[in-house]
Amino acid sequence: MKSAILSVGTELLFGQITNTNSVYLSQQLNILGIDVMYHYTVGDNPERLAEMMEMAFKDCDLIITTGGLGPTQDDLTKEIACEILGDELVLDEDALENIKAIFKKLNREMTDNNIKQAYFPTRAEIFYNELGTAPGFALSNNGKTIICLPGPPREMKAMFELSAKPYLEAKSDGKIFYRMIRTFGIGESTLETTLLDLIENQTDPTLATYAKLNESGLRVASKRKTREEAEQAVNEMIEVVKERVGKFIFSCDDEDIHEVVAKKLIEKNISISCAESCTGGFFAEMLTKTAGISRVFDRGIVTYSNNAKIDELGVKPQTLEKYGAVSIETAIEMARGIKKKTGSRIGISVTGVAGPDGGTDEKPVGFFCIGAIFDDKEIVQSFQSRHKDRNSNRNYSVLCMMNMVYKLISEYN
Amino acid sequence: MKSAILSVGTELLFGQITNTNSVYLSQQLNILGIDVMYHYTVGDNPERLAEMMEMAFKDCDLIITTGGLGPTQDDLTKEIACEILGDELVLDEDALENIKAIFKKLNREMTDNNIKQAYFPTRAEIFYNELGTAPGFALSNNGKTIICLPGPPREMKAMFELSAKPYLEAKSDGKIFYRMIRTFGIGESTLETTLLDLIENQTDPTLATYAKLNESGLRVASKRKTREEAEQAVNEMIEVVKERVGKFIFSCDDEDIHEVVAKKLIEKNISISCAESCTGGFFAEMLTKTAGISRVFDRGIVTYSNNAKIDELGVKPQTLEKYGAVSIETAIEMARGIKKKTGSRIGISVTGVAGPDGGTDEKPVGFFCIGAIFDDKEIVQSFQSRHKDRNSNRNYSVLCMMNMVYKLISEYN
Repeated sequence: MKSAILSVGTELLFGQITNTNSVYLSQQLNILGIDVMYHYTVGDNPERLAEMMEMAFKDCDLIITTGGLGPTQDDLTKEIACEILGDELVLDEDALENIKAIFKKLNREMTDNNIKQAYFPTRAEIFYNELGTAPGFALSNNGKTIICLPGPPREMKAMFELSAKPYLEAKSDGKIFYRMIRTFGIGESTLETTLLDLIENQTDPTLATYAKLNESGLRVASKRKTREEAEQAVNEMIEVVKERVGKFIFSCDDEDIHEVVAKKLIEKNISISCAESCTGGFFAEMLTKTAGISRVFDRGIVTYSNNAKIDELGVKPQTLEKYGAVSIETAIEMARGIKKKTGSRIGISVTGVAGPDGGTDEKPVGFFCIGAIFDDKEIVQSFQSRHKDRNSNRNYSVLCMMNMVYKLISEYN
Repeated sequence: MKSAILSVGTELLFGQITNTNSVYLSQQLNILGIDVMYHYTVGDNPERLAEMMEMAFKDCDLIITTGGLGPTQDDLTKEIACEILGDELVLDEDALENIKAIFKKLNREMTDNNIKQAYFPTRAEIFYNELGTAPGFALSNNGKTIICLPGPPREMKAMFELSAKPYLEAKSDGKIFYRMIRTFGIGESTLETTLLDLIENQTDPTLATYAKLNESGLRVASKRKTREEAEQAVNEMIEVVKERVGKFIFSCDDEDIHEVVAKKLIEKNISISCAESCTGGFFAEMLTKTAGISRVFDRGIVTYSNNAKIDELGVKPQTLEKYGAVSIETAIEMARGIKKKTGSRIGISVTGVAGPDGGTDEKPVGFFCIGAIFDDKEIVQSFQSRHKDRNSNRNYSVLCMMNMVYKLISEYN
């Protein structure tokens, strides 16, 4: 099957937002064994939208659109899809009830223009929106299919997973299974070089590396007659990959490292508290993204000022004076302080130069120190991020902290 | 002038990389007063590339391509540009010398296929590449122009700035100016309804609403003879918008609310500390994204457990017992506690049910309370988020906290 991805939205043509929907959908369609031939982006303009769809259908069987499904005047994707595939919009009572219920639940007044969102092509399969008010749908005619999804990435992804993917899988001649391996501490090109023979000789399973901020990933995918066969082929390949780069892998199921760490802490019932400086609460925020973490996470303290480090964590003024706030000496005292104060089994700390200013020759922007204590085992280590910008440095610091906790608790049974 | 941006590269269609080139070029072209009508992305396929260019030239005067300029067999952008604008490729001796010099400087051997990069259309204006080996060019014929830039974003941006921008500035017929208004506390459809007459009667300036997670935005854009006229038209329209929805606006310059708040705190030199429960450090993390915040942010405490609330903030055990950890009573004691402990002028707290579990009939998922104290002014308020998922609820809680601080300090001179 050949496909085109069509994004609707003037804000894309103004360069106000980055088209991450096309990236996600391209990945997903490729995994499903559907070739992506084009990406198009058009504004809220019905003629251009129709022209694009007609052009795409010259050599594609499937068009996925994102955006233009909302309640406003310029949301016209649905109308054009009808025009192209010869259908008409009618009010769907179930959809209307659903939208009304959403507004009621949200305790928001439903303005009249929202009724527009309950109109659908007569032959459409409606995809309900779990996270927003605009439903999507799939419409097929004569071997051509248009799937319309909402524009906000969160809503689009949820609807793709829940509705569009099963719809497409039912049309496919084979079953696809894939797993996403996530690594920390190895660059994408090193990862690729280490696995080059596997990547170059691939037929099925296929391997593809990709880079994320401060991380590298690997997708292992297989398309076989049954899902079970595909799954087995993927799992066998993953064992081969693990033999080569196992020590860098923290997940084979596309989990974030903070999620892996949080789940392990909960599962093993290991209590944790943290003391942060340069990351400003980012570690605590990441760790507490996972529901249920309250069972093991006692508290986090963001000690931005020197006074806070002294008052809250008992860091010695002499240590700050002699070694500076950004030093392994301060980091380990911070970790000891939070551990002592809370009685948590793990105390972890970070102090560093997030940037963009505040760097020195000795401690440049991106330099930071982590202290970690698990029961009576102490580790303290300094790091140098290769980034110049504040957010990337903070992200890297938190990933290093997570990785340190991951290593500490992985060894523990 | 109307334009299309054409990105060439299979890796985009595989979802391996995000198309940031289109974002950058859209922004730049809009600033130059050139309308961007489409984005296209195609793989390394000459027929499709030609078809896309022909379609774009039906209503555009300018096509900017990125990628496909390299030395390999499948780099065919230049050949297709010639075909479309009726020209032929000839070896440019200056370009060849330039490429040879680059390879010498990089201390890399120049393989024969690199000579391909020195071939250009006879009428082309060649753009030299300061950062890579592939030069770009502009080719015009009969009022139609193709500008070809390299694919790597760093090289593309440098070449755009240095060569393509001056080339285009000479051709432009008008200047665009726009501002992005950001609001909190009003939904996109209510925003649109409130401004409907302005939106429907728009010719210039134009107004467009858009939705972000827990926020609504409005773009006001104008295209006039000069940038000054466009700017004045936009600013006059913004005054009209402010009269209607001013109380929801926190930025007219596309800033995040945490950035606006952080900058105001720094500018007014107002110290702040925070005590968080359900948001797990998210407020502190957002606030400390802004460099220089260390001048006013003293500390943040994430008191996840009841014990932490008692120990760190002096919340009374009876309060927790009688009203629960999620209550306006606990929230205000948390705010008082952090303010007292730190001496910061602002103490702000949050406690709530982030979900997905832990909700009750009385306090469902998404229910949270914020306490805020600024000098001797105390506010405490409960909220109900419309979301079910943890991250959206936490995001909404933090935005409410930011908005509360924003209101408190906006009144203060």
